[in-house]
Amino acid sequence: MDKSTQISQLVQPVRDDLLSGAAEVALRAITIYQNVLPTEEDPAKLKNVLTELTLALIDAQPAMAPVFHLGNSVLLSVRSAETTAEIRTRCDEALANFEKQLCESANVIADKVFELIPPGEVVFAYSFSSTVVSCLLNARAKGRFFRVACTEARPAFEGNKLASRLAKGGIEVMHTFDNAMGLLLPTCAAAFMGVDCVGRPGVVNKAGSWLLAIACKELGIPLYALAGTEKFVTDERLFEFERHERPSEEVWNDFPKGVRVLNRHFELIPFTHISGVVTEQGILKGNDIDTYVSKLEVHEALRLEPAGI
Amino acid sequence: MDKSTQISQLVQPVRDDLLSGAAEVALRAITIYQNVLPTEEDPAKLKNVLTELTLALIDAQPAMAPVFHLGNSVLLSVRSAETTAEIRTRCDEALANFEKQLCESANVIADKVFELIPPGEVVFAYSFSSTVVSCLLNARAKGRFFRVACTEARPAFEGNKLASRLAKGGIEVMHTFDNAMGLLLPTCAAAFMGVDCVGRPGVVNKAGSWLLAIACKELGIPLYALAGTEKFVTDERLFEFERHERPSEEVWNDFPKGVRVLNRHFELIPFTHISGVVTEQGILKGNDIDTYVSKLEVHEALRLEPAGI
Repeated sequence: MDKSTQISQLVQPVRDDLLSGAAEVALRAITIYQNVLPTEEDPAKLKNVLTELTLALIDAQPAMAPVFHLGNSVLLSVRSAETTAEIRTRCDEALANFEKQLCESANVIADKVFELIPPGEVVFAYSFSSTVVSCLLNARAKGRFFRVACTEARPAFEGNKLASRLAKGGIEVMHTFDNAMGLLLPTCAAAFMGVDCVGRPGVVNKAGSWLLAIACKELGIPLYALAGTEKFVTDERLFEFERHERPSEEVWNDFPKGVRVLNRHFELIPFTHISGVVTEQGILKGNDIDTYVSKLEVHEALRLEPAGI
Repeated sequence: MDKSTQISQLVQPVRDDLLSGAAEVALRAITIYQNVLPTEEDPAKLKNVLTELTLALIDAQPAMAPVFHLGNSVLLSVRSAETTAEIRTRCDEALANFEKQLCESANVIADKVFELIPPGEVVFAYSFSSTVVSCLLNARAKGRFFRVACTEARPAFEGNKLASRLAKGGIEVMHTFDNAMGLLLPTCAAAFMGVDCVGRPGVVNKAGSWLLAIACKELGIPLYALAGTEKFVTDERLFEFERHERPSEEVWNDFPKGVRVLNRHFELIPFTHISGVVTEQGILKGNDIDTYVSKLEVHEALRLEPAGI
């Protein structure tokens, strides 16, 4: 089996993972980098393998900023490495640093979210996000009592995964199908969602987040997106999520002739529609993003070509 | 088998019908009345059977006003009948008149909807409604070219039934899962939905209609509810839809402990959220409803008890 086929096989589970949030997928990608490091002895070839793996991972989940940043930091860290040993050490360091940053962000965000959960109330949580789950479980562990409302999140039903995890952690969950959101939301005092990436125009998250956002606006419910700054990207990369399209059959297995079935999982929610992004640096809005991405160094293999070229 | 068990068996398919709109269910109920008419020879007992059947039908689909009006007109028409033959004749007449009125309303509404479909554009249609389907197919038959966007309408997927019928009639359909509504709606120039009942505060329709309504408002898309005046009811009956609750397992078959799964199929959409109700009498709003229901005679067996008694 050649290297490209091998990489494509390693990345396939990431491509087919419709249930995990962006931070969770990035953690899975770390293991894949660790698996390929010993497979090549020639330094130039090993660098090529890492580049190819990074491009394949980003292609598999183009909406998920942490996957891009993980790959970018790996490639930047090994750029000037000359020996295979050096490449492996630097890559391991980059992976460890990234994981550490993800965990630290999650802890700080959890403390901030604790303050945003009104005691005794119902809060809405949408889709599956490991950040949202850990924040809510952390709040319960700290003694805050509240209930959670959520919907199933078709077509992959990752809302059911969210409900199961929260219930297992002792949080009472009210659940319904997605289009019945309007029957549960009026009972909620706040809403939280995960995020795949954040840019100046808004946040990208699972399809349905836009409906949740306008419903929250209509009902006067604050809606917070939870995301570490490792999810921030430049404007051009923000729209990469539009490349993510899944097979129609996952939505409707035997759809008839004359019907085109769209299966896109991500959408953009403008900042005007949400109360803010809760990050490890505080609750941020669109203009704050610049500070974090303007100095971002992007490895040459990952730069997007300007439109029209 | 006693009469009550027999009636309950006849009504069960109506109770389990999650795919048909209100007008369609009323047409199915006509057949059930026709089936029970020959089963009883004693006039008083036959009247009791008709009353029991009517109460069972309304209980099976409490959101669907045409089922109530059909039953009400049957009971009123046989009230003063004395012989079995008389009861049968009057009941047959009431059923025929109701069916005629449904069809005539549908034809007039179809002509009005034709004018509301912008040529060459995409229109959104939600859930399944025989009125919406016949209006759209009528417009296509009259030579108007347009495309339709719709969503699947979980948990019963009656949106798939809508898509299939329209595609079979030569209309190009774009379809997606419910929470991806925000990805199709911005391409639409108008939206149409069926209705289960209409009262002064608003219209009752399939869960998801409220989300559609606030999304249309956000995007500036006109949303029309299509309904003959046989769907108009008094304020108190409007809220009968809240009694319709289906088993949790239809939404999530093996939901875990600690999760409560809500399976309610109907919701109220206030008049402030829609452009109007297209009826055979014109495009009406909340205050117009009074004219049609204030003089409505309700058979004593179908009167709702005042709240608190």
